[in-house]
Amino acid sequence: MSRRVLPSSQLTIDLARLRHNHQIVRQAAGSVPVAAMVKANGYGLGAAEVSAALAADGCTEFFVAHVGEGIPVRAAVPDAKIHVLNGAMPGTEPDLIAHNLVPVLNSLEQIDLWRTSASGAGRPLGATVHFDTGMSRLGLAADETAELLNDPARLDGLAVGHVMSHLASADVAGSNQPAGQLELFAPIRARFPNATASLANSAGIFLGSAYHFDMGRPGIALYGGTPLTDGSNPMAQVVTLEAPIVQVRNVAPGEHIGYGATHTMDRAGKVATVALGYADGFLRSSSGRGTGYVGGHAIPIIGRVSMDLITLDVSDVPEEALWLGAPVELIGDQAPIDDVASRAGSIANELLTDLGTRYQRVYVNE
Amino acid sequence: MSRRVLPSSQLTIDLARLRHNHQIVRQAAGSVPVAAMVKANGYGLGAAEVSAALAADGCTEFFVAHVGEGIPVRAAVPDAKIHVLNGAMPGTEPDLIAHNLVPVLNSLEQIDLWRTSASGAGRPLGATVHFDTGMSRLGLAADETAELLNDPARLDGLAVGHVMSHLASADVAGSNQPAGQLELFAPIRARFPNATASLANSAGIFLGSAYHFDMGRPGIALYGGTPLTDGSNPMAQVVTLEAPIVQVRNVAPGEHIGYGATHTMDRAGKVATVALGYADGFLRSSSGRGTGYVGGHAIPIIGRVSMDLITLDVSDVPEEALWLGAPVELIGDQAPIDDVASRAGSIANELLTDLGTRYQRVYVNE
Repeated sequence: MSRRVLPSSQLTIDLARLRHNHQIVRQAAGSVPVAAMVKANGYGLGAAEVSAALAADGCTEFFVAHVGEGIPVRAAVPDAKIHVLNGAMPGTEPDLIAHNLVPVLNSLEQIDLWRTSASGAGRPLGATVHFDTGMSRLGLAADETAELLNDPARLDGLAVGHVMSHLASADVAGSNQPAGQLELFAPIRARFPNATASLANSAGIFLGSAYHFDMGRPGIALYGGTPLTDGSNPMAQVVTLEAPIVQVRNVAPGEHIGYGATHTMDRAGKVATVALGYADGFLRSSSGRGTGYVGGHAIPIIGRVSMDLITLDVSDVPEEALWLGAPVELIGDQAPIDDVASRAGSIANELLTDLGTRYQRVYVNE
Repeated sequence: MSRRVLPSSQLTIDLARLRHNHQIVRQAAGSVPVAAMVKANGYGLGAAEVSAALAADGCTEFFVAHVGEGIPVRAAVPDAKIHVLNGAMPGTEPDLIAHNLVPVLNSLEQIDLWRTSASGAGRPLGATVHFDTGMSRLGLAADETAELLNDPARLDGLAVGHVMSHLASADVAGSNQPAGQLELFAPIRARFPNATASLANSAGIFLGSAYHFDMGRPGIALYGGTPLTDGSNPMAQVVTLEAPIVQVRNVAPGEHIGYGATHTMDRAGKVATVALGYADGFLRSSSGRGTGYVGGHAIPIIGRVSMDLITLDVSDVPEEALWLGAPVELIGDQAPIDDVASRAGSIANELLTDLGTRYQRVYVNE
């Protein structure tokens, strides 16, 4: 076995697996295309790289949250349609227009703001309209929806190409909320016969064709998180996160490990300290609850996750698998993102979007 | 009242308050100087900006975790001494030498590696040696410490300018662990009469002069987190985090808010959606537990923190304090970092180092 040595932590992003996931989601979406969520820097994996890979795989529409996120995506996919979920915020209109970004209009106030921009531009401006159907977060509320449907002239001057809503509980097994949202959205959607429509996020796509309308909007499934609620996962792991061993020490029974002495050794053993911490986005709530892998051996995280370091029990690992700079897998095929997140009391979305900036980032299979 | 409008979230870093905290810590450290922890990008606030501000305020030594972090700090403070906590990792020696960074040697293996570098360089290389005294994370373990003290020639060729250890429980009220670590460190330190020595982090400095040796090593206290265990905080808040309102909606009793419908309105009211989420480092564990402030009104976070958005109950806030783009304070004088972190089940260190990259960053009082 060659002794692979990492000078610092490494994040490997497998673009072939990303494209594989794209195809699985497309298949689940049946006859309709899917638009990729690439907000939050492509779920932490690099919005430009992810967008370009998906565009090369046939994806033609993308969603970001902020105008500032849309600009680098536009550079990566010059011909794609890019929606901005936060919509037209005061002061962002020039950038929306300059970079050909389509705001998702979430309220009558945003509709009016964008109409004013269209009037100033002297031409119809593209728009997506978001209707809330039970999430109570973004999108026209019931009262505003009624007002708009009674006064469609409020959209004059805008080219509404897409209407959407968002499912709150598609990932909650047995929830009746998706069906309720579907029932509310269908008649609204019918009022926009010239626009395409979408409702389903990753989990929603797998709820079946009733939820597909004209487009799916997958996010986490593309990046390897499961869209299913039965505990299985048809997606490939896209991310591998490895951190080097900085030190291995012998510890005696009764010795304490880490801040607050939260872990005490119950036998003589060995502890490995690895160069990765919560400042790298590895959630502190993983303290004493996670597992790493070195040379194929599972090694439990013991003690608190600290800012730049974690400590793992390597008592049962042979000496020859431990060396200065040896890579420890914290996320990957042995430690899928859903499992790592769940052990920290969170979800894969937070795990990925918290990934920090101190890694060496490596893209493979471009 | 002028209607201040934010197009996107804004992180304001007050460098006068940073310098104020530096002076408070210096005062607590009495006659010895302090070295600033600027690892993890200066606790998320910008290592270059923070280092330059502290150097201008008299700070001459700095600590980072990784070699890669030392390089921009070197550019910001050309004359300072910069220690690298992870020490000499295989492959990083050329950068350590080129940028005049001092590795903190944590093991006999790292000592041997750095000696080899010194031999190759043909001159003594600067080094800090870290002895573990109960943290069991980084630093020579008891067996390695004994071995080194019995064979000091192992350090030949190295210019050991500093020796250190690290307190595991200085922030745990009533812990007897610091006193035990002090007792172990004092005789080790005595074996290096030509080196300076340090033991105390922020909380350790406030434990009293026995812990001061020749230098304090404050981190979180500089950035506004309390170094005290009695619930009080003598430090100034350095960071203000504000996010704009994207939408305000009317909600009826019984309406659900956000993913998983975890919050249900018990009365008619209003919900504000704000452009900030866990992708911005605002921990998802704040779901349903945090508080924001708009126009001086406290507004509880309701429902789940999502990737790019949070929802807050603004039912009791007058209409005139709510507008598209209105700034909501999530961290600041009204929401100190320790309180915000504690509500999320975490600590200020994680809150700051998780701060994302989508903010407009503004430095004031440079």
